[in-house]
Amino acid sequence: MKTLTLIGIGTGNPDHLTLQAIKALNAAALILIPRKGPEKDDLAELRRSICADVITAPVTIAEFDLPKRDTSNPSYTQGVLDWHDAIAEAWQAEIARHPTAQSVALLVWGDPSLYDSTLRIAARLAPQPEITVIPGITSALALTASHAIPVNEIGAPFLTTTGRHLRDHGWPDGVDTLVVMLDGGCAFQVLQSQGITIYWAAYVGMENEIALSGPLETTGPKIIEARAAARADHGWIMDIYLLRREAKAG
Amino acid sequence: MKTLTLIGIGTGNPDHLTLQAIKALNAAALILIPRKGPEKDDLAELRRSICADVITAPVTIAEFDLPKRDTSNPSYTQGVLDWHDAIAEAWQAEIARHPTAQSVALLVWGDPSLYDSTLRIAARLAPQPEITVIPGITSALALTASHAIPVNEIGAPFLTTTGRHLRDHGWPDGVDTLVVMLDGGCAFQVLQSQGITIYWAAYVGMENEIALSGPLETTGPKIIEARAAARADHGWIMDIYLLRREAKAG
Ligand SMILES: C[S@@+](CC[C@H](N)C(=O)[O-])C[C@H]1O[C@@H](n2cnc3c(N)ncnc32)[C@H](O)[C@@H]1O
Ligand SMILES: C[S@@+](CC[C@H](N)C(=O)[O-])C[C@H]1O[C@@H](n2cnc3c(N)ncnc32)[C@H](O)[C@@H]1O
Repeated sequence: MKTLTLIGIGTGNPDHLTLQAIKALNAAALILIPRKGPEKDDLAELRRSICADVITAPVTIAEFDLPKRDTSNPSYTQGVLDWHDAIAEAWQAEIARHPTAQSVALLVWGDPSLYDSTLRIAARLAPQPEITVIPGITSALALTASHAIPVNEIGAPFLTTTGRHLRDHGWPDGVDTLVVMLDGGCAFQVLQSQGITIYWAAYVGMENEIALSGPLETTGPKIIEARAAARADHGWIMDIYLLRREAKAG
Repeated sequence: MKTLTLIGIGTGNPDHLTLQAIKALNAAALILIPRKGPEKDDLAELRRSICADVITAPVTIAEFDLPKRDTSNPSYTQGVLDWHDAIAEAWQAEIARHPTAQSVALLVWGDPSLYDSTLRIAARLAPQPEITVIPGITSALALTASHAIPVNEIGAPFLTTTGRHLRDHGWPDGVDTLVVMLDGGCAFQVLQSQGITIYWAAYVGMENEIALSGPLETTGPKIIEARAAARADHGWIMDIYLLRREAKAG
C-alpha cells in the first residue's frame, strides 16, 4: 500500500456524499469495510450500499472484523490505545491479503477529523502510507441543517464538546453555545435549565431521524423519553444536540 | 415563493458539492446569485459554473446586485442589521420578477450554519417561506482535511471562534484547541506562542490553496509573510487556522 484515503461519507444519508468522495471511492484499488457485530450491522450495510451505488470502477471491497475494545481494562485511555493498535493490525492483515493494491480507502462516518479515531489508527501503520483526507458532512452540520439554525450567534464563538465533559465540568465559561456529541445519556440534565434552548436530533440524516427543540426546561424531559423509546426500538442510538443560553459571555 | 432552500456548496472546490446539493439545485424553479462587485467576481463565477456543471433541469438563474454594507454607520451591529434588511429587500425584488417560481434556492459558501448571515436574512422575508437547509463542507473541515489532522484531542472539546474574539479575549480558559475564522489579520500574534502549534490554510479547497503548519513561534512569521504576498497577488484572501496548545485544560 502506498496511499491511504480516509473518505468522509456523512451521517447516514447516502446523499451526503460529495463528488470528491465519489471520485476517491472510484480511484481506490481496495476499500476496507469493518464489520462491527450484529447490533451495528445497519452501519456496515450502509457502507456496502454506498459502494454499490456510486462505484463504477473495478475496486475490490474487503470486509474485516473490527476487533473489540477490552472494556475490562482499568485504564480507559490504555484500553483505547490498545484497541487502536489492534485495529491497525487488522487493517494490515487485510491489506496483506491484497498485495497488489497500492491505493487503499476507508469510509469514515461523518468527517474524519471529528471525534473519530481513523487518523490516529492510520498513524500506526508501518511503513507509513501517504494519507489523504476527504472531508464529509458531520453530524453537527446535519443537526443545524435539520433545525435550520445557525450554529453561532453573530460573531460569537461556540464550543464543540462531549457528554462526558459537560457532565464533569458543567457549562464552560466564556461561551453561550455548545454542540454536544458522544453523550451516553442526556448529560444536559446536570445544567440549570433556565434560559437555555436545546436543539436535539437522533439518527440525523437517516430515515428514522427524530428532531426536537425548545426550552430545555420543558423539552429536556421529552427528549429523555423519546431517546429511551427510540433506543429500545432500534437497539442503538446516535444523538447530538446544540444548547444555547441567553448571552452571558462577553 | 413557497419554499426557500439554502444550499451549502463547500469552499470553492466544485467537488465539495454533495449529491443532496445537486438534487436541491435541480429541484429549484429559481436560483438567485448575488453579484458582490468586481473584486469578488471569482466567487460569483464559481457559483455560475457550479450551476452550469450540475443543473440538468429547467431552472431559472437570476443574478442581482448585493447591496453594500454602510461602513460609515457608527454602530457596527446596527450597520449589519440594516444591511441584512437591504439584502432581504433585494431578494424580494428579484423574486417578484419571477412570480411563478414557487421554489427558490440560494447557494451558500461552505455551510449555511457557520458564520453566515443567509439564515438571518431569510428570517426577514414576509410572508415567511418554508426554509430548508442543505449542509455543506465548511472551511474548517477543508482545513483539517488539508492537514490530515483531527480537530479534537481524544475526547476533548474545541472552540470555534473569530479573529476579533481571539484578539480581544486572548486564549480562552478550559480548551486547548481553537479553530479561528474571520480573521482580518493574523490575530494569533496576540498569543504567547510557546507550546502552540498552528495549522493554517488560505483559499482552502481552491486551486490556489496554500497550507502551512508548525510551531507558532517559527511558523507564525512565515504565515504573516505568505498571507500578505497572497493577498497582494489575488486582491483578496480567505484564510482559517487551527491552534493547538500542549494540554492545560482538565
Ligand atoms: C465517534 S463520533 C463520530 C462523529 C463523526 N465523525 C461526525 O463527523 O459526525 C459519534 C458521535 O457523533 C454523533 N453522531 C454521529 N452520527 C450521528 C447521527 N446520524 N445522528 C445523531 N448523532 C450522530 C453522536 O453524538 C455520536 O455519539
Ligand atoms: C463569512 S465566513 C463563512 C464561512 C462558511 N459558511 C463556511 O462554512 O466555511 C468566512 C470565513 O470562513 C473562512 N473561509 C471560508 N472559505 C475559506 C477558504 N476557501 N479558505 C480559507 N478560509 C475560508 C475564513 O475564515 C473566512 O473569513
